[in-house]
Amino acid sequence: MGRPALWLLLQFLLIPGAAAGIRPALRALGNLHLSSSSTSRPAVANNYLVRYIQQKVDHFGFHNAKTFKQRYLIADKHWRKDGGSILFYTGNEGDITWICNNTGFMWDVAEEMKAMLVFAEHRYYGESLPFGEDSLKDSKHLNYLTSEQALADYAMLIRHLKRTIPGAKNQPVIAIGGSYGGMLAAWFRMKYPHIVVGALASSAPIWHFKDLVPCGEFMKIVTRDFTKNGPNCSQSIHMSWGAINRLSKTSSGLQWLTKAFHLCSPLTSEDIPYLKDWLSETWVNLAMMDYPYASDFLQPLPAWPIKVVCQYLKHPHVSDSLLLQNIFQALNVYYNYSGQAKCLNFSQAATSNLGTLGWSYQVCTEMVMPFCTNGIEDMFEPYLWNLKKFSDDCYSQWGVRPRPSWITTMYGGKNISSHTNIVFSNGDLDPWSGGGVTKDITDTLVAITIPQGAHHLDLRAVEIAH
Amino acid sequence: MGRPALWLLLQFLLIPGAAAGIRPALRALGNLHLSSSSTSRPAVANNYLVRYIQQKVDHFGFHNAKTFKQRYLIADKHWRKDGGSILFYTGNEGDITWICNNTGFMWDVAEEMKAMLVFAEHRYYGESLPFGEDSLKDSKHLNYLTSEQALADYAMLIRHLKRTIPGAKNQPVIAIGGSYGGMLAAWFRMKYPHIVVGALASSAPIWHFKDLVPCGEFMKIVTRDFTKNGPNCSQSIHMSWGAINRLSKTSSGLQWLTKAFHLCSPLTSEDIPYLKDWLSETWVNLAMMDYPYASDFLQPLPAWPIKVVCQYLKHPHVSDSLLLQNIFQALNVYYNYSGQAKCLNFSQAATSNLGTLGWSYQVCTEMVMPFCTNGIEDMFEPYLWNLKKFSDDCYSQWGVRPRPSWITTMYGGKNISSHTNIVFSNGDLDPWSGGGVTKDITDTLVAITIPQGAHHLDLRAVEIAH
Repeated sequence: MGRPALWLLLQFLLIPGAAAGIRPALRALGNLHLSSSSTSRPAVANNYLVRYIQQKVDHFGFHNAKTFKQRYLIADKHWRKDGGSILFYTGNEGDITWICNNTGFMWDVAEEMKAMLVFAEHRYYGESLPFGEDSLKDSKHLNYLTSEQALADYAMLIRHLKRTIPGAKNQPVIAIGGSYGGMLAAWFRMKYPHIVVGALASSAPIWHFKDLVPCGEFMKIVTRDFTKNGPNCSQSIHMSWGAINRLSKTSSGLQWLTKAFHLCSPLTSEDIPYLKDWLSETWVNLAMMDYPYASDFLQPLPAWPIKVVCQYLKHPHVSDSLLLQNIFQALNVYYNYSGQAKCLNFSQAATSNLGTLGWSYQVCTEMVMPFCTNGIEDMFEPYLWNLKKFSDDCYSQWGVRPRPSWITTMYGGKNISSHTNIVFSNGDLDPWSGGGVTKDITDTLVAITIPQGAHHLDLRAVEIAH
Repeated sequence: MGRPALWLLLQFLLIPGAAAGIRPALRALGNLHLSSSSTSRPAVANNYLVRYIQQKVDHFGFHNAKTFKQRYLIADKHWRKDGGSILFYTGNEGDITWICNNTGFMWDVAEEMKAMLVFAEHRYYGESLPFGEDSLKDSKHLNYLTSEQALADYAMLIRHLKRTIPGAKNQPVIAIGGSYGGMLAAWFRMKYPHIVVGALASSAPIWHFKDLVPCGEFMKIVTRDFTKNGPNCSQSIHMSWGAINRLSKTSSGLQWLTKAFHLCSPLTSEDIPYLKDWLSETWVNLAMMDYPYASDFLQPLPAWPIKVVCQYLKHPHVSDSLLLQNIFQALNVYYNYSGQAKCLNFSQAATSNLGTLGWSYQVCTEMVMPFCTNGIEDMFEPYLWNLKKFSDDCYSQWGVRPRPSWITTMYGGKNISSHTNIVFSNGDLDPWSGGGVTKDITDTLVAITIPQGAHHLDLRAVEIAH
């Protein structure tokens, strides 16, 4: 469903200078509806080879001559020297095997495109650690964790593959990525158009930076996703913050909350901000993962998980305790769909496959994405974006200060019309779409909106009903 | 002379998306002949302001939060907020005031283009020293001397100017540069098209890198420039090496050479390779500076200096001593045109305005430009390009090793057709044209050849006959 149309689009990227031809294909894609099969396809078979390439730790300086092993995965079952192509996943903040197994799209189109598949791991994630165990230790070791260094790794890797694999030299390479990986795919085409003929940037919030989009967009979309499943649903979440605040004022209230939420350790009043952050993150993750089929990306989830969650959140105007018991039922969909969890731990990460520590450094340096809420257009407690405080927090955590304008200086912000051959795809349910490119910029910088689509739905495998 | 045509070309860069219109203007320029006035125009009046901007020492990492003062010059006499533009010189390896005074072109067109002129100094040159006096001390301090850091400085500076100068915000910026500065101008447009609408890259040998052009091109063009003024001229230089070799075998020969060349200190046999390098460099510099008027760029020179030099080199088949006396007369044109020099010093730099130390580091890191000679197609002793030896020399001088493929990975080598709005101009006398873009690549990546033109002649001021 829809795969042939997107595949057609990629084919257009392969025609030199003919990218203006993209548009007719787009029209077909615009009408596309995704499969709502609620069954999950088994994980992609691991029919790839694991390889390593020696990379400079610092591409942009010569004093440090150290190198490290970057991991990449390669699959050439369907690749043809004659008329083939190379699909190159620009790895993001996680273990590349996990990303590979969640990027069924590339496997789905490999045969039709006679494509070699390459999945490159982002430095400082998975096994690609420039300083081994010390890599995330401090700002000195983290100094080479930037998008520019990652893109240079990818450029070096592609040149290496073309030099060493007979038949690859003159083949077109298309960059593909989702989320931060989608930003990297788009930026890769912008900065290295001599290396990739085009890019598919899926759910890539390249505009989620200073002054480019309102900081409240993201949480407004999250809220909309819940409201869609009945206005009482987002209203219940909206009401829950006050209920928590009231209960957390007394020790008996804290005890009750600990029990009601089945928490693994007793709550103290100092925990409350963290508890609320954890709840917010849960609602955000549900919005990102609101896929039409059961999935297991950040957590095992049913099909259309928000719909399932909202079944418990139909009555906002009940007592605090009843409301929060309902909230627990909703949480349980996210944290205990498998029924295995004995208790919930609000300090747990959603998945260990994502490199949260490395990403928190990136957010504190280049990837400064402002978020805010007002509690009116969204279902959250009001929160103002405060760069000063953010910067101070970064400084105390990492000893570095963010450069909020840098990404726009480097990659152009909204002024990117001179580039070509980038497909930006966004699901209309995905909160990240607020910072993404959702309207065509030129004939060859095209936007695709996937109706009922959550976070990089298009990169996932086509679902097969069993 | 010709300035209106080049000016017209720049105007086309200002029309968004209309760069295809460049071509008719080009045709006019192709027929252009430059003034052969042999008078020198007085130096550009210093009607600019000197300004400084605080720049990050490292744009590509966050551990080092140090900043330094980058110098830039700004002139807004002819600038208009309404319909004006910004011409931005991407400084190369030298003192920016000296470059400014040798870039009369920008001053010549300022009024017609209602242009603000900005000349940005390249980090590690002139006053723009990231670590003050220690900047060139060792590879640790030199670590931030790269083209990428320099381009990031320029991007930051332009964003700063647009933010702080009322009326500048929405004005188009054109990058202009000559030689290495021309490479930077072209690369700036390639990497930051959101910041500059186009570039004039004058005498920019962006292809003088590994495997892109034959390593012997440069010296072949130098030789051709001398042959043009009579075949005996290059033949005399060709014969001179053997004469020097024979004479330097004996101490009386060395004494004689010291006297014949009016050297400031007595020659030893160890000096001979340096003496020959110095002679070669002199012939190269004459080829670069073979301007149609008296000039004072690297040295005070007469109009068409090679023609003057060749008047002394009409008889290649004479005795060694007579031949070398003639060579001295030729040298004297270059080193003592003013008649002030009491002796010649073959360890002297051509000009103190060029940052030769910083450039020698750049050549040992990113700017790895292969040169070679064979003594058959050129007038030099045979010299093979030996990367291993070059790398070892760099390592012993700076403790770094060159990356000969990096520039091509970063900036695309010959595969740059997806970029737009760059004018590459080359003089057909300029030895650097061998590594330059001398044929149109697309309708908006255009090449201009200046007949009888030496090194970035087009950026010099229009000559006015007195």
